[in-house]
Amino acid sequence: MTETTVQPSSTTPPQVPAAAQALVEKHREALSEATAALEARSFHSRYPESPSPKVHGEDAAPTGLKAHQETLGTTFESLSSQPTTGAWVGAERSPYGPELGVTYPQLDVAAAMQAATAAQKAWRDAGAEARAAVCVEVIDRIAARPFEMAHAVMHTSGQPFVMAFQAGGPHALDRALEAVTVALAEQRKVPESVVWEKPAKGEPIRMQKDYRVIGRGVGLVIGCNTFPTWNAYPGIFASLATGNAVVVKPHPMAILPLAITVEVAREVLAEAGFDPALVQLAPEEQGGTLAKDLALDPAVRIIDYTGGPGFGHWLETEAASAGKLVYTEKAGINTVVVDSFSDLRAATGNLAFSFSLYSGQMCTAPQNVYAKATGIATPDGELTAEEFATSLGKAITAFNKEDAKAVEILGATVNDDVRARANDFAGLADRLGGEVVLAPREVEHPTFPDAVVRTPGIILLDADKQDAYTQECFGPVVFVIRTESTEQSLQIARDTIQEHGAMTMAVYSTDEGVLADSREAAADAGVALSENLMGQIFVNQTAAFSDFHGTGANPAANAAYADAAFVSNRFRVVTTRRHV
Amino acid sequence: MTETTVQPSSTTPPQVPAAAQALVEKHREALSEATAALEARSFHSRYPESPSPKVHGEDAAPTGLKAHQETLGTTFESLSSQPTTGAWVGAERSPYGPELGVTYPQLDVAAAMQAATAAQKAWRDAGAEARAAVCVEVIDRIAARPFEMAHAVMHTSGQPFVMAFQAGGPHALDRALEAVTVALAEQRKVPESVVWEKPAKGEPIRMQKDYRVIGRGVGLVIGCNTFPTWNAYPGIFASLATGNAVVVKPHPMAILPLAITVEVAREVLAEAGFDPALVQLAPEEQGGTLAKDLALDPAVRIIDYTGGPGFGHWLETEAASAGKLVYTEKAGINTVVVDSFSDLRAATGNLAFSFSLYSGQMCTAPQNVYAKATGIATPDGELTAEEFATSLGKAITAFNKEDAKAVEILGATVNDDVRARANDFAGLADRLGGEVVLAPREVEHPTFPDAVVRTPGIILLDADKQDAYTQECFGPVVFVIRTESTEQSLQIARDTIQEHGAMTMAVYSTDEGVLADSREAAADAGVALSENLMGQIFVNQTAAFSDFHGTGANPAANAAYADAAFVSNRFRVVTTRRHV
Repeated sequence: MTETTVQPSSTTPPQVPAAAQALVEKHREALSEATAALEARSFHSRYPESPSPKVHGEDAAPTGLKAHQETLGTTFESLSSQPTTGAWVGAERSPYGPELGVTYPQLDVAAAMQAATAAQKAWRDAGAEARAAVCVEVIDRIAARPFEMAHAVMHTSGQPFVMAFQAGGPHALDRALEAVTVALAEQRKVPESVVWEKPAKGEPIRMQKDYRVIGRGVGLVIGCNTFPTWNAYPGIFASLATGNAVVVKPHPMAILPLAITVEVAREVLAEAGFDPALVQLAPEEQGGTLAKDLALDPAVRIIDYTGGPGFGHWLETEAASAGKLVYTEKAGINTVVVDSFSDLRAATGNLAFSFSLYSGQMCTAPQNVYAKATGIATPDGELTAEEFATSLGKAITAFNKEDAKAVEILGATVNDDVRARANDFAGLADRLGGEVVLAPREVEHPTFPDAVVRTPGIILLDADKQDAYTQECFGPVVFVIRTESTEQSLQIARDTIQEHGAMTMAVYSTDEGVLADSREAAADAGVALSENLMGQIFVNQTAAFSDFHGTGANPAANAAYADAAFVSNRFRVVTTRRHV
Repeated sequence: MTETTVQPSSTTPPQVPAAAQALVEKHREALSEATAALEARSFHSRYPESPSPKVHGEDAAPTGLKAHQETLGTTFESLSSQPTTGAWVGAERSPYGPELGVTYPQLDVAAAMQAATAAQKAWRDAGAEARAAVCVEVIDRIAARPFEMAHAVMHTSGQPFVMAFQAGGPHALDRALEAVTVALAEQRKVPESVVWEKPAKGEPIRMQKDYRVIGRGVGLVIGCNTFPTWNAYPGIFASLATGNAVVVKPHPMAILPLAITVEVAREVLAEAGFDPALVQLAPEEQGGTLAKDLALDPAVRIIDYTGGPGFGHWLETEAASAGKLVYTEKAGINTVVVDSFSDLRAATGNLAFSFSLYSGQMCTAPQNVYAKATGIATPDGELTAEEFATSLGKAITAFNKEDAKAVEILGATVNDDVRARANDFAGLADRLGGEVVLAPREVEHPTFPDAVVRTPGIILLDADKQDAYTQECFGPVVFVIRTESTEQSLQIARDTIQEHGAMTMAVYSTDEGVLADSREAAADAGVALSENLMGQIFVNQTAAFSDFHGTGANPAANAAYADAAFVSNRFRVVTTRRHV
């Protein structure tokens, strides 16, 4: 150890443009704080989550709105510097009603892949520290346009404004920074250069060994409609920070937020002395096959995907068998197990928020609530499963009683599938063999009359109706499933999640034994567990740097934001050695 | 950071049997030293590589030989504690001639998978520290039978004795310890429990979060004929240390070394308070389909494979598309670029050893030597490519001139393919369109007259004979490829490796510019580079804890021993959180 810890100079030292080196200095402390938070898994947020003028200044909100409005109905010119076919594409329509009218230059894929591949060399040679610093600058610059981004996310995803501001902006940016931080930590583990010394007869054998991080190749990031930035940023920044170029393929209905992202990334890259071809946008309209074509492009080595299970499964099978690294987040049956309550009102209030937020259109929103048929203990006596379902219904109704306030939580339904289920809720209950406990209510949006807004509805099902409740019913649909016992609830939860996946699980119980059993069930099912949430933390929300998003251990997702496994295979290490 | 760094007690603390806890204490220092070496990538070897009686005592060699001989011709009874079908399988024949005559209980796969899956729970709950300590004990106990293992490896792989002792024993065990060390480091990065504190109006929000490491599921390790232990140990111990059970499927011709390994592992696991079903052996004879069947078994989640590219490709496509994590090492075109020499004799001597060692049957042995047609500078004047090839031939001939010494380097040819190429070397050269510079020589083994031993032969090819030299000719075959210039040599090397893969690359040059270009070519091709090796370090040897084996960045292998990517996806993390 004595001599080997003396770090020699690598014969292939990083080649960092001066502007990038300035960013290394600028963001050293930010990365150091983020690294410490990651190690401690402590609270860390670089970007303020409040949209208050106290934080952003009085001008920020109107300026951001103006920027958004000025983009509507235009061609997104800044991306014309990409290799394009000459065509302009885009037909986004806000879930709140209006057409966005923005079109984007169509990417010339062959030329783009060539440009991306060529750009990777200088990016590789710049080394991990420079890449991380450039990424932080990109993230900071996106953060500097928070209201513009909030409107872009709101009018593509249908999220309510404050949620779009938070989840689309600061929370997404914190996850982006987390990915950069994990990537940097993983790359730092490999020293740049060491002298290795093996004892031998007479003089020891001494060799200098240089370790060079090289990217895998182009990373493809396939965005989703509901969280265009939040779900795309971990993959974008994990690939970029580990030396890969990135092609971003947004959902056809949620292009704008990622167009802004790519615009900023390209600006920063160019300013830092790199080729902006390191980040490119590949937009298309509904019905295209671009995601599939890109996934099979030989230059693409890494794929990050969030979306429906059908295409996710295709990626996990066909693209994986073509040798691509595939990171997916698909869908699952998020689960709540109800056993007993220390405070029923606080618990149902917490759940009402989780079910209502963005109309249950979060990948982490709960759907299945397993409740024993009788004997659910509360301070005011025992409830049956049906009585519990009624209590939950009352909490949801109370929570959403004023339309003007309700829309600020519910947002707008994102597509016709979701609307169909909400609009024919009785028919849905009928087909599933269940009983409507609470019907969704039509909510009128005061500003956007075309938005289809619905409160969550509840269907009571018996435990033997497995076909009914082992499918994801995306949107404002809650199943309360009546079981024989909490033991059975946990058994069904475990089996269902092992087979169909889940991003989240929650349990309510005052019994330490039940909580311990729930932890076992969660470990067996490979799902994160939240216990007795009754305050301002919700099962569908995770905190960057502390909570992993997904586990990768059940069919809902094969990866987690952001652990070492999410980044460590995106780069490889090439050693050169020689005698000294 | 202040309060979150206070580590609370996890509500799901590790449950460590007392015997396993004793191993944690026993191996704490060994793991601490190994961890330090890994971080510094410094020299580290826990197991002495010399077979000298000074190290092992006078009795060790005869005792080990006796143990080996007593095993020959018997049934391997200790593995009967596995679930078996009642049948006994095994038809190993030493490359040195004799049948081993050992048979092994055939695994009842369904029962074995059930047992493995059931055993994983207590192994998971024991936590990373206990698992690592138990693994070190397994490795130490294997190390305590070095001569028995050396004979087992020698008479299955055909390696010469000293190499079988080293590569089959201490070097394999060092790689095993490396895998355990990387696995432990990766798991340690996730704290067991933290208190997370988010600033809020009034009191901050405080939550306890417990992080639990869970394995992916059963790991299948498919062994190879030539390095039964060295290539199997990284996968076995990486999977085991991260909480997974392991089923070891040895090559039908190299069962014995892994049977001993599994025997020891099961003994140690049982003594430490765990179910020996965590490690099971699945032997079969030539022509079976067990590897394929096991790969597709639903319980199997991780596959480690070393062997031919055909089945490797099947695993990377079919098994990967079935959702398995697949780590392969297949084959490649290991490459030497020859530009100029400061000491031709030392260089060709070094290369002669690399080509001769185990008759070129190492996955890291060089095959293609690219040499410019004219102008290869040496202190004694310039050489043509042909003159260089002749010099290399002389070095190989001199190195292997005495049969009795030569067999201690060459070992025995392992299969008929290798023998066919060596026996019809002129025909091979003819078919490839090349010229024989040096024909392989028949070497008589003084002890084992049935062993087929051949020295390496050299074929000179022109650079336009790409079909000839872009295939792996496993065994004692060297191609010297005549190019226009070193620039062309590097270009062909880069292209060939990108397309066909390589585990190793070497360069000889006195020109710093050429060395720098070689480093670029190696980075582009994703292959480790050794520069100007002329002493006791050889291109085909790597050192655990310092050199990565493979890069995972070219088609020869999709993973490296042992980086974070090799272990970090073998486990997942399940979080549970609650307010405090």
